[in-house]
Amino acid sequence: MRVDLNADVGESFGRWSLGDDDALMPLLTSANVACGFHAGDPLTMRRACRSAVAHGVSVGAHVGYRDLAGFGRRFVDAGVEELAADVVYQIGALDGIALSEGTQVRYVKPHGALYHATIEHREQASAVVSAIVDYDPGLAVVGWPGSQLLTLARHRGLRTVEEWFVDRGYDASGRLVPRGAPGALVTDPEVAAANAVRAVERGAGASLCVHSDSPGAAATLRAVRDALTDAGTEIVPFAA
Amino acid sequence: MRVDLNADVGESFGRWSLGDDDALMPLLTSANVACGFHAGDPLTMRRACRSAVAHGVSVGAHVGYRDLAGFGRRFVDAGVEELAADVVYQIGALDGIALSEGTQVRYVKPHGALYHATIEHREQASAVVSAIVDYDPGLAVVGWPGSQLLTLARHRGLRTVEEWFVDRGYDASGRLVPRGAPGALVTDPEVAAANAVRAVERGAGASLCVHSDSPGAAATLRAVRDALTDAGTEIVPFAA
Amino acid sequence: MRVDLNADVGESFGRWSLGDDDALMPLLTSANVACGFHAGDPLTMRRACRSAVAHGVSVGAHVGYRDLAGFGRRFVDAGVEELAADVVYQIGALDGIALSEGTQVRYVKPHGALYHATIEHREQASAVVSAIVDYDPGLAVVGWPGSQLLTLARHRGLRTVEEWFVDRGYDASGRLVPRGAPGALVTDPEVAAANAVRAVERGAGASLCVHSDSPGAAATLRAVRDALTDAGTEIVPFAA
Amino acid sequence: MRVDLNADVGESFGRWSLGDDDALMPLLTSANVACGFHAGDPLTMRRACRSAVAHGVSVGAHVGYRDLAGFGRRFVDAGVEELAADVVYQIGALDGIALSEGTQVRYVKPHGALYHATIEHREQASAVVSAIVDYDPGLAVVGWPGSQLLTLARHRGLRTVEEWFVDRGYDASGRLVPRGAPGALVTDPEVAAANAVRAVERGAGASLCVHSDSPGAAATLRAVRDALTDAGTEIVPFAA
Repeated sequence: MRVDLNADVGESFGRWSLGDDDALMPLLTSANVACGFHAGDPLTMRRACRSAVAHGVSVGAHVGYRDLAGFGRRFVDAGVEELAADVVYQIGALDGIALSEGTQVRYVKPHGALYHATIEHREQASAVVSAIVDYDPGLAVVGWPGSQLLTLARHRGLRTVEEWFVDRGYDASGRLVPRGAPGALVTDPEVAAANAVRAVERGAGASLCVHSDSPGAAATLRAVRDALTDAGTEIVPFAA
Repeated sequence: MRVDLNADVGESFGRWSLGDDDALMPLLTSANVACGFHAGDPLTMRRACRSAVAHGVSVGAHVGYRDLAGFGRRFVDAGVEELAADVVYQIGALDGIALSEGTQVRYVKPHGALYHATIEHREQASAVVSAIVDYDPGLAVVGWPGSQLLTLARHRGLRTVEEWFVDRGYDASGRLVPRGAPGALVTDPEVAAANAVRAVERGAGASLCVHSDSPGAAATLRAVRDALTDAGTEIVPFAA
Repeated sequence: MRVDLNADVGESFGRWSLGDDDALMPLLTSANVACGFHAGDPLTMRRACRSAVAHGVSVGAHVGYRDLAGFGRRFVDAGVEELAADVVYQIGALDGIALSEGTQVRYVKPHGALYHATIEHREQASAVVSAIVDYDPGLAVVGWPGSQLLTLARHRGLRTVEEWFVDRGYDASGRLVPRGAPGALVTDPEVAAANAVRAVERGAGASLCVHSDSPGAAATLRAVRDALTDAGTEIVPFAA
Repeated sequence: MRVDLNADVGESFGRWSLGDDDALMPLLTSANVACGFHAGDPLTMRRACRSAVAHGVSVGAHVGYRDLAGFGRRFVDAGVEELAADVVYQIGALDGIALSEGTQVRYVKPHGALYHATIEHREQASAVVSAIVDYDPGLAVVGWPGSQLLTLARHRGLRTVEEWFVDRGYDASGRLVPRGAPGALVTDPEVAAANAVRAVERGAGASLCVHSDSPGAAATLRAVRDALTDAGTEIVPFAA
């Protein structure tokens, strides 16, 4: 058994720091690096890539809406053509930064409101997929199981990677417990770890995601790593 | 004899159009495409690359300060590390867009105040050069003859391309007549064409530049092309 | 009978010009000035206010989403609290610019996608209304007849001004003919003028709007002014 | 004896928090609120104004270059006319936000690189001064003693307030010890407090400034307040 661990990094911007990339990076196998549209200035991106190289972590383009003020968490009704160009731009920019640090972008994952939109919004999902196909059909796409994004990506021949959130609660039908409801967040690292082991056993996703801004994200990641290793699961990037 | 013709394109931004790319592109051999920091949204960049491909024009990254409001025409006292990352980001972004249209970035030329700064500002010039070396040492650099930019680029092993402005007046010592002074602008296409022929004959620059926002830029380019062709000069991109 | 004529001005941004403010301003009684979020840099705003003063035109705050790349034409799912603060900020900024030119903001009109959203989106409409009430309950609100925006504004005690578009076709039930459908645009100045006279006669709106980017906007405005004057209608700002 | 205590607040932006406004605000008499150009989104500004009202603190416009990525710490060679408009815009925007919270802007202080530039850069200093005069000649200006900014402001009839930094070392001639040199930073609250008492006694400045991002800024402010109060100095805003 093998699984990947992904989290968001490179979300600082200029004078503003966010996230604890130094703590998270050694615990990941895949790093979703912000590309400057919702977070991440070029120097922050460069440091994230440098750190990813140092820790043998695969770099993914965490593409988002052009909305620094809203951190990409607000739906923007962008048209297909402009959104596709925005996504190509972001992948290329990060790939350039990655190249300058001796690595390259291996996959794409939408961020925030774009992640949520592309679960059901067919036009925006297709814009993201087209961008990836046009840039490099060898890139994988990480997303929500059953999303329009992954469905369309598969149709276009892209490698898709379903993810499962170790710090979130799921209901019996496999949906996330809404934020605010009891059980929405899994904050106990041991519970998260046990959930992760079961999720891998039943093949819930090829990549496990921890939200970087969850309290105790690093502690959760460590517990998850330990439990998976104990259970005989190899923790390796899905693409390297 | 051979010479290249370059001009700035892709300088629109969202709703705002600027320049007549459709008129200029068929007349160029190299297109300096804005990369989103001083002008050029991703869709505009994509259209410029598509047009460059259609006309067999080489694509260059016209990198600038992050200053949309000032169109990159105001000096920004950016530090070396951040400026280098900004330049890598811009080259990568345009290269991604270019890749999606079946071409690639062939050279880098600084825009506006960054162009002027890197004539004498050693730190900023070295930031631009380092960025290019780190991204792809196969890229050429277009700039002002004798500039720190070209000097440092040559030292680092980059191919350098000196340019000569066909729509500007030069004094006896080879400096531009300052804007506002008599003879600063060459507006008569025939005069510009005659100047261009002489410039090529004495090897003034491997690329001739026309400012896209000069009145009659397309007419000037046409006259220059005709005169050069009549004089037996081949008009070809310096890199393709 | 009296009516107001409004149009959008101040939509340039830095190096990028848009609209023909010089032609439109003498023909208006109310100028919707962009406030920097979707268009309009501070210097452009200042010039628009200076021109408004010179022509005795009332200044209105044309508030929009923070989306320069999209010109405020894309819906942004902004929350109530942040949108309200964004609107206060924009009104205050323009009022400051207006003050420095000897005038002041008299009214608020949402721009683009925010205009459309606030027709039915109750939360965003209430955010705009709250912002105005909190800033200055003496300001009027210009909008679409029957919109949530005007309804809520009236409930909160604001003066509301319904507008009618002279360059757009209306169907029998008073809705705009959708762009792209036959009759969507009224391009003949004489037809627009005749429509305007009838609209005023039946009290269709206290302010008539011409889209600044309609072809022949100035010609339409002139025809409308002449026809209204001939019909005995006084053309005056609704607030001055 | 009376003195004012000022510090920077409202420097968060969207998702990114910066500074501990909650800890600082109760200790200040004047709050330099970022206005959105180098930091400070409208909602952050609104919260800062609300807190200032709650604590009886005067609000000042901390105006900066339009440079979020550089946090306003990089010199930008902005022209006089555009810089003046940028400053009017920022003051007006903050004044609007302040008005919506029941207060108003009382003074202006340039931020970061604009603060430094206006010590000697006569054109940029005059742009800031003109902006204040054009907006409201009743506003005070806080700055460096002997700066072009304060000199020009005084000539134009503005009230000027010299400031003295309690967390920085001064050499014998009254200049700041450069950052990086020994004695540049005063980190011991008791030393800062003793320095502050002596500074007030010899009239070094009508306002004492603490850098919000100095480690222990709140502790320093508390020590300074206690020592000044013990020495019989009244701590009151210079403008309220």
